[in-house]
Amino acid sequence: MPTPLPDSRISPRFAGLMTFGRYPRLEDTGGPIDWAIYGIPYDTGVTYRPGTRFGPRAIREASQYLKRYSIVHRLDLCDALTMADAGDAPVHPYHPKQTLDAACGFALSLGSDETRTLALGGDHSTAYSNIKAAWTRQGKPSGGLPLLHFDSHLDTVDSVWGEKYGHASPFIRLIEEGVVDPRRMLSVGIKGPLTNGDDLKYAEEHGVAILTHDEWIETGDQPIVDFVRRLEGEAAYCTFDIDCVDPVFAPGTGTPAVGGFTSHEALRLIRAMKGVNLVGADVVEVLPDRDVMGNTALLAAHIAFELLCLDALRRRDG
Amino acid sequence: MPTPLPDSRISPRFAGLMTFGRYPRLEDTGGPIDWAIYGIPYDTGVTYRPGTRFGPRAIREASQYLKRYSIVHRLDLCDALTMADAGDAPVHPYHPKQTLDAACGFALSLGSDETRTLALGGDHSTAYSNIKAAWTRQGKPSGGLPLLHFDSHLDTVDSVWGEKYGHASPFIRLIEEGVVDPRRMLSVGIKGPLTNGDDLKYAEEHGVAILTHDEWIETGDQPIVDFVRRLEGEAAYCTFDIDCVDPVFAPGTGTPAVGGFTSHEALRLIRAMKGVNLVGADVVEVLPDRDVMGNTALLAAHIAFELLCLDALRRRDG
Amino acid sequence: MPTPLPDSRISPRFAGLMTFGRYPRLEDTGGPIDWAIYGIPYDTGVTYRPGTRFGPRAIREASQYLKRYSIVHRLDLCDALTMADAGDAPVHPYHPKQTLDAACGFALSLGSDETRTLALGGDHSTAYSNIKAAWTRQGKPSGGLPLLHFDSHLDTVDSVWGEKYGHASPFIRLIEEGVVDPRRMLSVGIKGPLTNGDDLKYAEEHGVAILTHDEWIETGDQPIVDFVRRLEGEAAYCTFDIDCVDPVFAPGTGTPAVGGFTSHEALRLIRAMKGVNLVGADVVEVLPDRDVMGNTALLAAHIAFELLCLDALRRRDG
Amino acid sequence: MPTPLPDSRISPRFAGLMTFGRYPRLEDTGGPIDWAIYGIPYDTGVTYRPGTRFGPRAIREASQYLKRYSIVHRLDLCDALTMADAGDAPVHPYHPKQTLDAACGFALSLGSDETRTLALGGDHSTAYSNIKAAWTRQGKPSGGLPLLHFDSHLDTVDSVWGEKYGHASPFIRLIEEGVVDPRRMLSVGIKGPLTNGDDLKYAEEHGVAILTHDEWIETGDQPIVDFVRRLEGEAAYCTFDIDCVDPVFAPGTGTPAVGGFTSHEALRLIRAMKGVNLVGADVVEVLPDRDVMGNTALLAAHIAFELLCLDALRRRDG
Amino acid sequence: MPTPLPDSRISPRFAGLMTFGRYPRLEDTGGPIDWAIYGIPYDTGVTYRPGTRFGPRAIREASQYLKRYSIVHRLDLCDALTMADAGDAPVHPYHPKQTLDAACGFALSLGSDETRTLALGGDHSTAYSNIKAAWTRQGKPSGGLPLLHFDSHLDTVDSVWGEKYGHASPFIRLIEEGVVDPRRMLSVGIKGPLTNGDDLKYAEEHGVAILTHDEWIETGDQPIVDFVRRLEGEAAYCTFDIDCVDPVFAPGTGTPAVGGFTSHEALRLIRAMKGVNLVGADVVEVLPDRDVMGNTALLAAHIAFELLCLDALRRRDG
Amino acid sequence: MPTPLPDSRISPRFAGLMTFGRYPRLEDTGGPIDWAIYGIPYDTGVTYRPGTRFGPRAIREASQYLKRYSIVHRLDLCDALTMADAGDAPVHPYHPKQTLDAACGFALSLGSDETRTLALGGDHSTAYSNIKAAWTRQGKPSGGLPLLHFDSHLDTVDSVWGEKYGHASPFIRLIEEGVVDPRRMLSVGIKGPLTNGDDLKYAEEHGVAILTHDEWIETGDQPIVDFVRRLEGEAAYCTFDIDCVDPVFAPGTGTPAVGGFTSHEALRLIRAMKGVNLVGADVVEVLPDRDVMGNTALLAAHIAFELLCLDALRRRDG
Repeated sequence: MPTPLPDSRISPRFAGLMTFGRYPRLEDTGGPIDWAIYGIPYDTGVTYRPGTRFGPRAIREASQYLKRYSIVHRLDLCDALTMADAGDAPVHPYHPKQTLDAACGFALSLGSDETRTLALGGDHSTAYSNIKAAWTRQGKPSGGLPLLHFDSHLDTVDSVWGEKYGHASPFIRLIEEGVVDPRRMLSVGIKGPLTNGDDLKYAEEHGVAILTHDEWIETGDQPIVDFVRRLEGEAAYCTFDIDCVDPVFAPGTGTPAVGGFTSHEALRLIRAMKGVNLVGADVVEVLPDRDVMGNTALLAAHIAFELLCLDALRRRDG
Repeated sequence: MPTPLPDSRISPRFAGLMTFGRYPRLEDTGGPIDWAIYGIPYDTGVTYRPGTRFGPRAIREASQYLKRYSIVHRLDLCDALTMADAGDAPVHPYHPKQTLDAACGFALSLGSDETRTLALGGDHSTAYSNIKAAWTRQGKPSGGLPLLHFDSHLDTVDSVWGEKYGHASPFIRLIEEGVVDPRRMLSVGIKGPLTNGDDLKYAEEHGVAILTHDEWIETGDQPIVDFVRRLEGEAAYCTFDIDCVDPVFAPGTGTPAVGGFTSHEALRLIRAMKGVNLVGADVVEVLPDRDVMGNTALLAAHIAFELLCLDALRRRDG
Repeated sequence: MPTPLPDSRISPRFAGLMTFGRYPRLEDTGGPIDWAIYGIPYDTGVTYRPGTRFGPRAIREASQYLKRYSIVHRLDLCDALTMADAGDAPVHPYHPKQTLDAACGFALSLGSDETRTLALGGDHSTAYSNIKAAWTRQGKPSGGLPLLHFDSHLDTVDSVWGEKYGHASPFIRLIEEGVVDPRRMLSVGIKGPLTNGDDLKYAEEHGVAILTHDEWIETGDQPIVDFVRRLEGEAAYCTFDIDCVDPVFAPGTGTPAVGGFTSHEALRLIRAMKGVNLVGADVVEVLPDRDVMGNTALLAAHIAFELLCLDALRRRDG
Repeated sequence: MPTPLPDSRISPRFAGLMTFGRYPRLEDTGGPIDWAIYGIPYDTGVTYRPGTRFGPRAIREASQYLKRYSIVHRLDLCDALTMADAGDAPVHPYHPKQTLDAACGFALSLGSDETRTLALGGDHSTAYSNIKAAWTRQGKPSGGLPLLHFDSHLDTVDSVWGEKYGHASPFIRLIEEGVVDPRRMLSVGIKGPLTNGDDLKYAEEHGVAILTHDEWIETGDQPIVDFVRRLEGEAAYCTFDIDCVDPVFAPGTGTPAVGGFTSHEALRLIRAMKGVNLVGADVVEVLPDRDVMGNTALLAAHIAFELLCLDALRRRDG
Repeated sequence: MPTPLPDSRISPRFAGLMTFGRYPRLEDTGGPIDWAIYGIPYDTGVTYRPGTRFGPRAIREASQYLKRYSIVHRLDLCDALTMADAGDAPVHPYHPKQTLDAACGFALSLGSDETRTLALGGDHSTAYSNIKAAWTRQGKPSGGLPLLHFDSHLDTVDSVWGEKYGHASPFIRLIEEGVVDPRRMLSVGIKGPLTNGDDLKYAEEHGVAILTHDEWIETGDQPIVDFVRRLEGEAAYCTFDIDCVDPVFAPGTGTPAVGGFTSHEALRLIRAMKGVNLVGADVVEVLPDRDVMGNTALLAAHIAFELLCLDALRRRDG
Repeated sequence: MPTPLPDSRISPRFAGLMTFGRYPRLEDTGGPIDWAIYGIPYDTGVTYRPGTRFGPRAIREASQYLKRYSIVHRLDLCDALTMADAGDAPVHPYHPKQTLDAACGFALSLGSDETRTLALGGDHSTAYSNIKAAWTRQGKPSGGLPLLHFDSHLDTVDSVWGEKYGHASPFIRLIEEGVVDPRRMLSVGIKGPLTNGDDLKYAEEHGVAILTHDEWIETGDQPIVDFVRRLEGEAAYCTFDIDCVDPVFAPGTGTPAVGGFTSHEALRLIRAMKGVNLVGADVVEVLPDRDVMGNTALLAAHIAFELLCLDALRRRDG
């Protein structure tokens, strides 16, 4: 069933109440939904600059100019998938774990069993919620989900200032809980000086595959292609921290690391996952107050679009 | 019937899909609606800088932080009025008159007979639509509606570059069509050099009362109070061009005129109309691309709030 | 003993490591210090937009252009008082109460018994720390300290999302603990719609004197003068929330309320307290990411300057 | 005859009345002019964000820092060509076709028969005017002019909202009128999702060669080199829509498409046309209100410089 | 003879090569000129933030939206005066005195004996040049010219870092040279902390009348009216440093002082001089890189307009 | 001896008085210092846009987020080198040569004989000071120091407007004085149109090796690697003008040249010098007023970090 859009002869892209991509609100739809897109407006998890609580709103606004037909894939996304905007998850700004649990519960409540969820952050701690929801929907496979992780940072710090559920720690928690399988986790784009080497040591010791940005300069996207091929269509998750993109291309983020991907390289990273069976995804760490001219939010909307295309292509091309 | 708002314990002001003031969408309501708020995202009417087509969207975003209880009026607006966001009127960006007629028709289609409409511009040509709709709802009184007009410019230029429905001309058109009564029209805040004196001559010859900004410095709001008192409760309309506010307080506008009202003075201008029986209103000329930090849109949202309070006060205090 | 400044023939105002006002670091001074200025870089307490953790840094930067001789008071502040910058208090970003206690302890550790402390926020919850420190230094007078409070908001909300030490609640906590005397508390500049009337009800029931912005338009600064006169030189505290200033004059803040004081009016509010015996003060809620051109931080630095002048004038003029 | 410039010992680049590149005004010159540069300050043709009417002004301002000697070409452009700034074409903001005809007439009126015209937009609909003028000056060759087209969009949409001369349609109109030869038209840099595939279908069916941005990633500039070689010196036209450049490099534009050329790649695209016999050119879609720090306008000025160098190189090197 | 303007039916305000107010270039005029407006793009004289070398360019750009008919004065300025833009004076950025002498010579070279000159700065040191030129044109009256001086600073510092011709010193130099009469000099708007009291002492000892901003709050414009009346039509000069305006209204300046005039108050300050016989004037210290949304330059253009109106009113009303 | 940093459990990166990298102030250290980092807040040397006097302050602020452990080099810089912030050199804003001599003297006064100095500009004329200081510390080797020079401009212009010590001239002066050896000088990244070819001619005639940006596109970093290898560990100096970086990546600079290095390419340029024996370095031309979101200053801090890493690697790896 296609996703209906407003009639642009009456309501141009600069008009109308905003939902992601101008897709219908979940509450206005009937029948099964392939993907529910929703926000987690929460940023208490940060270690430096806050403000990503305004991220979902900014991505929705930028997505008004997101068109439906991909010239690269020769694909009309809205013909291929039934999508809806589910609004924002409940949050408890003073309480990290309580927020993450509430957001996870919200994700599990959306649509039907077949519905997959795409979360818009919020700081990276919110990935915990949506990944756990996807893993739960898959029947909590032992060993955990394979994870494609794009980021400047490893996010495997045990705790910061006594808090174990902050944005430096989601993957150490998910690995500990068996939600993510560290031996089938690929972290792409890691770069920039670290506070110390502890997070690196943890990731390496647990078998996380790391492709630093400097290594990627040499290899290109091939390690991603190979990683996906090895998954052989198994259910997997993709988490995309916008700060893996160069802070000139994505200034709207809280912990910028000099010298990352361009916007175009970022789009191609996603396309390199072609064939993957995504059962959930997120785009996080968009901080609108630092987003000069909205390029970060606009890129985030297109990253989400390409992630959704991956699923549409899998359904079309097998 | 009160206007329901989201539960802020779950969905803080930075969360959720956006409607004006977080009020319900018109389509989600049942029963009578006192006020329908809607946008007219159109700016082809301008003579200088375009961009107000993004005005309704910006005002909605700013209005997320619009609270409900007025400490000045000791009034809970959402308890007093049933309000809803009706989305945006259809527009035809290449065709001025066609757009204005479509927007007028849209306004007339909202709610029931008792519903009043508050339009968010858009350039000032869009006032033509909403005023005509209000006049039509009132049964097209001969002589036309009384008009309270806040602006830096008279907007009584006959035509610009051959176009008679641009943003310099709404009031000459409405006077010609008998929709507005020029002898019961008060233009407040006029200022800045003019291209020539023709618009001034037209307004003076047709009996429009003009209170220039420099005159207001001397008189204060008393002429507004007097004007309203003379109306004796008769149905009237208020059009508020944000460029009457100083361009430092409202930089987001297309034809700025140096040296106008402060934000606080603007709020008090509206409150000076206490007792007026508003049957329609608009706030126009918000141009987000020039709106440093969103102060213009935030002020516009509060101007709309105060306009709605006027009607709530009339119902409460008689 | 005067406060030494760098030799501007060698190090112009745009040169050198930055301390508040180019005053010496506390650790570089010997002998008694009249005032220790320090930051509390903390913003977890907010209910809307975060970011004031960068406030102390921004105010210090703006203060590089803060000169020493007041033409209004005919006073050389650096000749009159011995001042030093004590750096920033320790903070625990995930833990409100723990941060407030640590900051209070830090304030109490600065200088000697006679030293008074001026805190630079940080969100308004940090006022709790510095007020409590001032009260403690005064021997914990029963009944609590008199408080001069400049703000758009009453900050007497009991709790938000389950947290009792957020920035909407400092005064309810300080009143409960007997640190502030509500019957000798004056809240100036209150304005803007409220979420509901509960905070207003609390304040009124406990005897807090409220001078809303609209009332101040009528009275001017006289109620402040009268309030100070009634104190008869008793030790008092002043807390200044920059959001009482109009968001056009002070855009760099997280919960802007349309239509407040101008910068000049703000300076005069402080001067109206002439004669007060300030034993502590704070300037809070400066949010640099929203501070267009730095006017908010520059104003905050001058507010701090005027607060310090109050004490210098008291010592000079008795 | 060289192009005279102001004496920079007296009038530095930040001084003096502005013309493009500090070249003389056309009215101040005598004798033949090789290239007349002029603006078309018009943006009614847009389908999304307006504002390019301010483009010519911004490009002129940026061009004050445009130096004359190319280190890449070892060429002094002002020694090689006689150039002048002809000011701006007349425009009729409410009337698309009337504006385009007036601008075309203006272009034809400049200089003598040998004069070539470089237009600064304005939205892309204005290319219609300058291409038609160049074709007319060439004696209206049947079959139309070859066209080198740099853009994110194909601009072969039949009409939008009932208007056939908007900025999505210039090439369908020029092809219909026989001004441009679609079989000798190369569109470079096409990218981003499309509203639907109709424009793509039209272009492909009429023989337009399309080099999408993703294809260019693989081929580099060689297809451009080959295209020019096949022209064998025949008169051709180049139209450059700044939105083919990545919106991070050229934020000042109205319909940004994520992931395009860098500034340096854009300069090299132009240089890849070496040997082409340009009889006209344009740089369009510069929207100053979105142009952070002026990088878009600065790039547009350098694109124009490189286009002019192409003609100088052809004259020098044959 | 009126000042001709471009036909706005052909060339809207956003079109065409820019001169001040769209007035003709001096070199394009014949016959006598009442006022020559020119820039002095020079900022080496500053003691804090440089950048006013771009001031004349920014004021010209802002002045494109300067209309001709004053509704306050009921005066068409372009009918009343013959005005022209003379471009920019030569500058020598590394050499203060050499620049000031060259600019003075340039001013003296413009038009005929009757021509008066309005200079657009540049930093305040450039006032030295234009005042000296005006004094020379008046036959170097012994005792010097009366001076109306609007500023936050006294600018009577003897020297800074060994330089006697910087922007803190123009009036001490002009008084020493007998060009300005300190006993007929009025400094309006002085405010903000001073480095020390030496400049204040000099001004007071030499008989300069000082109206601080705080004093003006009490007196209003009456002292200006009185000052002008006492001149009895004698030739006088007005120098307007934009930093006397509040830095929120005029952020684009290099030494901002918190808490000054609003834009509207600034316009009224000029109008308060009605009756004055201005033989020269300047508007200085506009720094575009800090000018959020161009409000500072727009105000400067209107200040210049009002200064010119003063002369037109004197000629009309005697 | 390692470089001590603040305890981040108490003082997060957004807290505390700022020094470069949060390293100790030189005056707070004892024992030998490997590198003293200091600023030269001076910009009188510019030929176009001033403002780099605020550069050192901005780089220090950006460096608060500079972490210590390089994942690329697997190196903890603070363990490897003893570093300190020495504050800013004295400057004389009106006097170029006097400033340069004072800054050179200041550099020579820092630390002990073994201390090396890293200067933060300021305009490029300040490189003269630090290079001369490094050469002096090396015993003034005849023939001069080898120089690695990254820049868009050659900076070998003899003089501008009569000044021989401006920012277009440092290398012609240093070559004349025998401080730099032009036959062992490599200028990397030269690009953009030149005013004329004179500076190019001088550099080529004196044997300076030039790698233009366009040549670098073809060669990559290999010429830098080769250049360093030929030095065989001899003492050398590196001067880095941030304007060699593309103005989109480094907008905060005064003479931007379209189309340069990305941030990541810039970091790799530095790393290509691995093995070099740096006895001094500088990063210049950071102009904060044009630095959108601080990316330029953030990059400059990381360039400095990589320069320091070069020395740490040499010590570790020989």
